[in-house]
Amino acid sequence: MTARTTGERITDHPEAQDITLQGVLEALADPVRRSIVRQIAGARGDKACGTFDIAVTRTTGTHHFRVLRQSGVIRQYYAGTSKMNTLRRDELDLAFPGLLDAIVLAADREAARAAAPH
Amino acid sequence: MTARTTGERITDHPEAQDITLQGVLEALADPVRRSIVRQIAGARGDKACGTFDIAVTRTTGTHHFRVLRQSGVIRQYYAGTSKMNTLRRDELDLAFPGLLDAIVLAADREAARAAAPH
Repeated sequence: MTARTTGERITDHPEAQDITLQGVLEALADPVRRSIVRQIAGARGDKACGTFDIAVTRTTGTHHFRVLRQSGVIRQYYAGTSKMNTLRRDELDLAFPGLLDAIVLAADREAARAAAPH
Repeated sequence: MTARTTGERITDHPEAQDITLQGVLEALADPVRRSIVRQIAGARGDKACGTFDIAVTRTTGTHHFRVLRQSGVIRQYYAGTSKMNTLRRDELDLAFPGLLDAIVLAADREAARAAAPH
């Protein structure tokens, strides 16, 4: 995984012990950010920034990724010129067992319900 | 459980199908409201409004209880002159499996960590 570390230029990830429930819930109490997390959770492997389906401007998108990163929900790193995104699943599961899965499951259900014909 | 219905004067509880993940996460992304939920979860039976340990004014407390009620996290009812609080656990578990438990567990852990000597 050399590419993952040699290209690293993003330095504001919190340490695992500094991830707070408050920060994680604030991060996930936004529909765009939940959508980002769902898309990472549903991807095979990590997901590049340009590949998300989110209906916001680039600036707004950057803001949402920053909130997710600084709250400890996602980790970002460069692979060449691509900024990649991965969930900090192991660290979150250790700190808050079941929380990420429960929120992703709930968000999946809500999205499925929203997409269903009325 | 006649007392539970005959004394009912609180009419802004959402129906189960109208409880949204957005609303629940917004409600729980506040430390005072998480503390209220933790205290109900840790109580034997339902818990009267005057019995919570929260360091806010009465007006602020009322606001927080309203947010929890209108988001569908808690149900409030009168028993005589006491306003009682109960978690809408079954309905939340059905809509968002594991979410309430994961958040209460995480909040318990975080409170225990905050209370531990440094």
